[in-house]
Amino acid sequence: MRTPDSNADEKRAAGVAAADMVRDGMVLGLGTGSTVAWTIKRIGEKVEEGLEVLGVPTSYQAQELAIAAGIPLTSLDQDPVLDLAIDGADQVSRDLIAIKGGGAAHAREKVVAASAQWFVVVADSTKLVGSLSHPVPVEVLPIAKRLAKSRIEELGGSPQIRQAKMKDGPVITDNGNFVIDADFGEIEDPGVLATQLSEIPGVVEHGIFENVDQLVVVLDGEVKIFSRE
Amino acid sequence: MRTPDSNADEKRAAGVAAADMVRDGMVLGLGTGSTVAWTIKRIGEKVEEGLEVLGVPTSYQAQELAIAAGIPLTSLDQDPVLDLAIDGADQVSRDLIAIKGGGAAHAREKVVAASAQWFVVVADSTKLVGSLSHPVPVEVLPIAKRLAKSRIEELGGSPQIRQAKMKDGPVITDNGNFVIDADFGEIEDPGVLATQLSEIPGVVEHGIFENVDQLVVVLDGEVKIFSRE
Repeated sequence: MRTPDSNADEKRAAGVAAADMVRDGMVLGLGTGSTVAWTIKRIGEKVEEGLEVLGVPTSYQAQELAIAAGIPLTSLDQDPVLDLAIDGADQVSRDLIAIKGGGAAHAREKVVAASAQWFVVVADSTKLVGSLSHPVPVEVLPIAKRLAKSRIEELGGSPQIRQAKMKDGPVITDNGNFVIDADFGEIEDPGVLATQLSEIPGVVEHGIFENVDQLVVVLDGEVKIFSRE
Repeated sequence: MRTPDSNADEKRAAGVAAADMVRDGMVLGLGTGSTVAWTIKRIGEKVEEGLEVLGVPTSYQAQELAIAAGIPLTSLDQDPVLDLAIDGADQVSRDLIAIKGGGAAHAREKVVAASAQWFVVVADSTKLVGSLSHPVPVEVLPIAKRLAKSRIEELGGSPQIRQAKMKDGPVITDNGNFVIDADFGEIEDPGVLATQLSEIPGVVEHGIFENVDQLVVVLDGEVKIFSRE
């Protein structure tokens, strides 16, 4: 049995290892979540030691962490092309497709990842799977809630509006929308499902990321790096 | 030369004709714009005469018009399946594909149209074309502005952030987003372009509507109705 502690160690190891990919002068996409939080912290230490980088946060959370770590920020308006984006994932397959959105930040994360020349996912070993099966987070306009749920059911998924814990009612994203967690069980063809979800009216963004260039993951206590061929 | 007045007459004739499709007990999608405003007005008159319907507005504008016309309102949360949705268009082709979004309401309009069992577009003769060429309105998350512009350019389009006239800066949609007007000239395959636009990260909704069931248009002073075969 994996203990929560060893999992936390893996997150830290993967997160810190990804920070070593950062080079002087880079403009970086800064992801959201508990693993990439270690990356942001480590980049901050390097900045203190003289590294010159700029960061584009993918969420309010990433922005706060980056400010606390002392990483100077920019925006996609000022720097539309990023050198490197680093982010976590809820699940990632060996062929480098990720499911993201557990933090409800996947719409901005996808925009940032798509703006980067190199997109790296950091993960602990529990996230790596042969085939994807994690429920797909789908950000929808509030008005599209029921339509999107029924379209997801037509696609064979089981949709659930994500409920908040620290407020009444549904989770509201940083963009003011709802999140539907759409459980498809094992996903046969993530590329096909990605297109089908994008085409649902009122869907802002789904959590299937097909453009992962590299995966930094801890397996058997060692940092392993998988790259897209 | 078409005079503005004859155009206004056509809008009125098409809008009023569509109201005749409404039957007792229907739940209706109420579109946005100057032509469907006539439909809403005429439905309101019928409600005053005893017609029982409920309406789901596609925008703040449609909501205000419906309230003024005395049409009782409901929502897609209460009534997820509509009997009939009626809306205008910026351009519509003879094979019943429409470009919408001149009023920046196309995201909600598309959700409403997709929730309806029958989707009718009302238009004056200037809107009907052999092949679509109107710039495609694309609603995007503000953070995705530059990425979406460059992706649209890669697709062969000429993108322009729509600027407001009664406020400084860009138009903000009812959903809090920007609109990019993407000019592709004559659009060879609207279905392919629709999918490509949906797949751009941060695109909330584009203005290509492929699910028009019926077109009510005024040609040579007469109301003509074209239905999908």
